[in-house]
Amino acid sequence: MILALAGGVGGAKLIKGLASICSPDELIIGVNVGDDFVHMGLHISPDLDSVMYKLAGLNDRERGWGLANETWHFMENLKRLGGPSWFNLGDQDLATHIQRTSLLKAGNSLSMVTNQLSQALGIAHQISPISNFRISTFVESALGEIPFQDYFVRLQCEPEVLGFRYEGAEDAELLPYIEQGLLSSQLRAIIICPSNPFVSIQPMLAISELKRLLLNRLVPCIAVSPIVRGKAIKGPAAKMMLELGSNPGPEAIAAHYKGLIDGLVFDKADKQELDKVSSGGLVGLATNTLMNSDTDEKVLAENVLDFAVRIA
Amino acid sequence: MILALAGGVGGAKLIKGLASICSPDELIIGVNVGDDFVHMGLHISPDLDSVMYKLAGLNDRERGWGLANETWHFMENLKRLGGPSWFNLGDQDLATHIQRTSLLKAGNSLSMVTNQLSQALGIAHQISPISNFRISTFVESALGEIPFQDYFVRLQCEPEVLGFRYEGAEDAELLPYIEQGLLSSQLRAIIICPSNPFVSIQPMLAISELKRLLLNRLVPCIAVSPIVRGKAIKGPAAKMMLELGSNPGPEAIAAHYKGLIDGLVFDKADKQELDKVSSGGLVGLATNTLMNSDTDEKVLAENVLDFAVRIA
Repeated sequence: MILALAGGVGGAKLIKGLASICSPDELIIGVNVGDDFVHMGLHISPDLDSVMYKLAGLNDRERGWGLANETWHFMENLKRLGGPSWFNLGDQDLATHIQRTSLLKAGNSLSMVTNQLSQALGIAHQISPISNFRISTFVESALGEIPFQDYFVRLQCEPEVLGFRYEGAEDAELLPYIEQGLLSSQLRAIIICPSNPFVSIQPMLAISELKRLLLNRLVPCIAVSPIVRGKAIKGPAAKMMLELGSNPGPEAIAAHYKGLIDGLVFDKADKQELDKVSSGGLVGLATNTLMNSDTDEKVLAENVLDFAVRIA
Repeated sequence: MILALAGGVGGAKLIKGLASICSPDELIIGVNVGDDFVHMGLHISPDLDSVMYKLAGLNDRERGWGLANETWHFMENLKRLGGPSWFNLGDQDLATHIQRTSLLKAGNSLSMVTNQLSQALGIAHQISPISNFRISTFVESALGEIPFQDYFVRLQCEPEVLGFRYEGAEDAELLPYIEQGLLSSQLRAIIICPSNPFVSIQPMLAISELKRLLLNRLVPCIAVSPIVRGKAIKGPAAKMMLELGSNPGPEAIAAHYKGLIDGLVFDKADKQELDKVSSGGLVGLATNTLMNSDTDEKVLAENVLDFAVRIA
């Protein structure tokens, strides 16, 4: 059994690769909820949706988020009505948000709702929010503390980052299904997917119970770096690292996850950093981490799992 | 100054005609809220929307409700997700419901929200909910009491009607703007638009204060019948009248509004009923009530206003 922790788009790709190898019984998928927010009364879970749409094969590859063949008639009319236009909601995508919000209001937990939506989309694997508690990422900046979606979408990641706060994380209860997975004698490896370390993975690691279980792990934990040649494949990870005073690359990612991982997978373009990773006490693997096709996703997943077996 | 009470589509047409004659200062528009309901967390006001879309020139003439050039991608995905499919929500229309719900949650009253939405759509005339209080129409039937939208949309008006209940109406506060209009020395006439007497007009008349002010009116009140040749132009009005034991036509409409109106406008196809209406103590006017064009709407509005002047 494998437990994988994932954020948005990059994480979703590796999850898809892992799901193409592991049966539903063999893969526990824990997804970040730190960038969940309520917009116009709708509960929006961007990372759960990214993983869900990806596993359902409904994701838009070009735009990188949301559903393929999306239309925008809702947004056009919302703008005409003077509504907020900074957060784009596609017509199809809206159904997910409205159905999720409706099921939550009826008393279902986020994990139950995610199961219902996933099953409706024919997804065999179970996708789980890391917690049913609310965790809200705030970006600390020179402008003050900014709610994550304001920073990410409205301000287009422009403000310089000074730090982060994960409201509710410390006291959040790790999802029992994930906790059981981490405690299971069947567990063979933990994978930290190539998602933004600060805003996709850290909100999960800020859950005391998850951090404690990772620190006391009996199986290898492998992180896959989202950085290639000093740049994030997508999103502000590299910009954030620079602003926080580190040099975007395998060494800094290794330092970031220190004590929590045993191995680091990074792109072969950065293979000259293997020594630095090793000297930091980790086992490194330089391989192709760019996932531009189903095959790329599957091959990377296979390489990561082989690597975990080797480390164990 | 004219005060017009309207429900959905038929009422909206006459409102459009009146608005083409009367300036915004000369026309007070009171709209039924008895079929408002909350669906999937969204506050839906079908009659306010019908009047608003009509006055904005955005209504769909063929379908008879909602917006022209509507698309249905939200509904398609909602069905795929296992969400409720009995109530159709168009992609553009959703923006109205979500923006309204969002503004209501922010503490605005329904009348304030309606003003905001109307202004955003460039509507010069003020459209007012008859009350900011919640009024909910229930249909009493052999199947028991049915919430209005369940009866109207889900059950397609099939159950036999035994009566109606207008929850919250008796204690609802008439919108102050409408109350002021009714008490104004400038008021020249009250028009009851050709809307369903039971589910569009009666939920308003069930407001104690409105009924009291209508009973004590100092200006003529004119109703326009929604029935032509024993049939409703649209919707279940005639079916309801039959089930409640009356014969759909001018005489029964006159009896229904007894004491509240001074004149009844009905279609020229039913002009042989003029004597029956007169013998009931009302002044009748048989004219064309079918509104298939902007011109029809304007001509009927002119005829109704002339009739009111004549009666006064």
